[in-house]
Amino acid sequence: MATLWEQRYAHRTQCMSSSAIRELLKLTEQPDFISLAGGLPAPEVFPVKQVTEAVDTLMKELPTQALQYGTTEGYRPLREWLAHTTASRCGINVSVDNVLITSGSQQALDLIGKLFIDPGDRILVESPTYLGALQAWNAYEAQYVTVPMDEHGMVVDALEEALRLKPKLIYLVPNFQNPSGTTLALERRQRLVEIAERAGVPIVEDDPYGQLRFEGEHLPALLTLDAQCQANGRGDYHGNVIYLSTFSKILAPGLRLAWTVAPPEVLRKLVQAKQGVDLHTSSFTQMLAYEVAHDGYLDQHIEIIRKTYKERRDTMLAALAAYLPAGARWNRPAGGMFLWCTAPEGVNTVKLLEICVDKKVAFVPGTAFYPCGGGENTMRLNFSNATPEMIRTGIARMGEAMREMMGQN
Amino acid sequence: MATLWEQRYAHRTQCMSSSAIRELLKLTEQPDFISLAGGLPAPEVFPVKQVTEAVDTLMKELPTQALQYGTTEGYRPLREWLAHTTASRCGINVSVDNVLITSGSQQALDLIGKLFIDPGDRILVESPTYLGALQAWNAYEAQYVTVPMDEHGMVVDALEEALRLKPKLIYLVPNFQNPSGTTLALERRQRLVEIAERAGVPIVEDDPYGQLRFEGEHLPALLTLDAQCQANGRGDYHGNVIYLSTFSKILAPGLRLAWTVAPPEVLRKLVQAKQGVDLHTSSFTQMLAYEVAHDGYLDQHIEIIRKTYKERRDTMLAALAAYLPAGARWNRPAGGMFLWCTAPEGVNTVKLLEICVDKKVAFVPGTAFYPCGGGENTMRLNFSNATPEMIRTGIARMGEAMREMMGQN
Repeated sequence: MATLWEQRYAHRTQCMSSSAIRELLKLTEQPDFISLAGGLPAPEVFPVKQVTEAVDTLMKELPTQALQYGTTEGYRPLREWLAHTTASRCGINVSVDNVLITSGSQQALDLIGKLFIDPGDRILVESPTYLGALQAWNAYEAQYVTVPMDEHGMVVDALEEALRLKPKLIYLVPNFQNPSGTTLALERRQRLVEIAERAGVPIVEDDPYGQLRFEGEHLPALLTLDAQCQANGRGDYHGNVIYLSTFSKILAPGLRLAWTVAPPEVLRKLVQAKQGVDLHTSSFTQMLAYEVAHDGYLDQHIEIIRKTYKERRDTMLAALAAYLPAGARWNRPAGGMFLWCTAPEGVNTVKLLEICVDKKVAFVPGTAFYPCGGGENTMRLNFSNATPEMIRTGIARMGEAMREMMGQN
Repeated sequence: MATLWEQRYAHRTQCMSSSAIRELLKLTEQPDFISLAGGLPAPEVFPVKQVTEAVDTLMKELPTQALQYGTTEGYRPLREWLAHTTASRCGINVSVDNVLITSGSQQALDLIGKLFIDPGDRILVESPTYLGALQAWNAYEAQYVTVPMDEHGMVVDALEEALRLKPKLIYLVPNFQNPSGTTLALERRQRLVEIAERAGVPIVEDDPYGQLRFEGEHLPALLTLDAQCQANGRGDYHGNVIYLSTFSKILAPGLRLAWTVAPPEVLRKLVQAKQGVDLHTSSFTQMLAYEVAHDGYLDQHIEIIRKTYKERRDTMLAALAAYLPAGARWNRPAGGMFLWCTAPEGVNTVKLLEICVDKKVAFVPGTAFYPCGGGENTMRLNFSNATPEMIRTGIARMGEAMREMMGQN
């Protein structure tokens, strides 16, 4: 008798689905395809030389530790270094007991789901929001409360109303948001932190792109503002924010390395969850990242990334102005990897994508990022991965596809 | 107002607890401590030279692929190589569509929990069983049905009775089991596969140690026996077994690399779950393992590990005979990393451990491995990690502790 697998799956699997983006990525592996769809860093600026040297050093100095099992919390020198750099960048108290290493921020999202979400629990998210968070939390049967965004990020005026639905957590990407490229304004950050604190609803601050600012002034993290509210003279952070960041966007995503800053009591629970999930993140990649990062090279490297991405963003902005039909709109992100584009009225971007795929160019239709519907004529454009020339060609093809579609209407 | 974290945790967190073993591992980091507690490979035989060379090659030939995001299923050449070696070792059809790369087998256990376990679902396990499986599945609020073991592994005569409780899955470690060191006899393997197939209950076969056999004949995997039942001429495996194995025990655990062989329809669901959990396993470590393994070096390396562990097992057997008081019993595993020891009647091994820790030697008390209680005078001894000299000293100290305890009785 063939095993009836379908009948054995857990209830939660009904909420799980494949990511539209990752399915698309498979298509874009064809030669000559120009993908503005994924969220891939520029491979041209991977620190290949530094990684090679770091492994050589590691295999000479600490080979058995790099190849052996490690602690669930992560490689201690890396955690100490992260605590130190977070503390000095943010001007707040952060100790090693606040820092957990995860296998990418995606794992942190999964662990947070495991720790906090009972089936039916609501999570408050921006609309649009990061798809990976929805994917992680759908598996815990989360529901979503959305708060709209404008060009200054989450519309905090709508927050108190949304909090009446008693969400378990508030999730947002305040810097150069994925998908919209938007940055939350300073005054909104302050109000958000105060409102969340008053309501007793923790904030999950997902900050993969914060260090990739091309222009303008760096804004304080929600973690920072929250720590300032809670000034207490202790050596560790014990506030209302769980802060996530990653080496994927400032070093290399193939290492699958990220870190979480959380109050020690939450961190201990995350560690407990992580034990059951993968024991610990690769000792090898953790020690490798520490070796590359700790002597100051990382700052130089981030500067190279910023310069590269700024050039690509500018190329994309120029191409959009040159090739898109009247009625199309887009924003000008001050950093990060994504730009948000609104097609002319009546252009459904899921249909547009079909035409674009024939022309060998891809983007992600905006609807994917709206957990409660909407955004039918919007799209996310990635400017970090393709070369400037490919960006120009890709946007030209996309403009062509839009005109074709509008002619058909 | 301080955030009331305790009130926000999900219901499932009440079932989660820290691993006794991992908490112990922290103690054993003291100098001069002899740990027979963990499940760590011998660091002396890590393939440091091969890893260094592999990274050099990788960084010359495929640097950007190794540092970039990859597909959730895993690095295709590694999956193809694993499909090929599994097919030829087992003499069955296995295709790349049967193979998923995971971040250690612990992640495969978590993904299986996510895919199959609704709160309250029962999982049939051996008693004693692997602690990591319990940890992964406790987070999904699993219940357990236990089947006792004897020196030939799970007592299959008790299986049909246990199946009346309608478990969702049958989980076992058939080769050199963790914790008991026991191997499931051939005739029992055949009956187990037939009974599970007839009952329509899938088997999760966890096989980290199968290739670490010191003596006697290799027994067919449950995967193999099941595939033979289901002979169908197709190029992929589509039976009733989900098979797990890992590079942790044959290459290096610090890489966090394992693989799952499952029917394609189950594999697709596991991939969906893995997307939300960590996107994918490190491209870097996957390509590194492929580089070290694919040209045949791995077989040579496994031979070195086998020789080292056999010597250590023999040292432990001799030390047990020399130092343990009358009434203590132990088995003689034909491979793997663990040996099972029963202290004389009345010696509670949790109390024994306290005395042993003062003497700077540790093991894991057997009770940890019994999900439904039992095993109060049993313990798991690891013989792979400590050197022969340390093993002798450690067992001598343990014998001393037992005598002290028995004198007190």
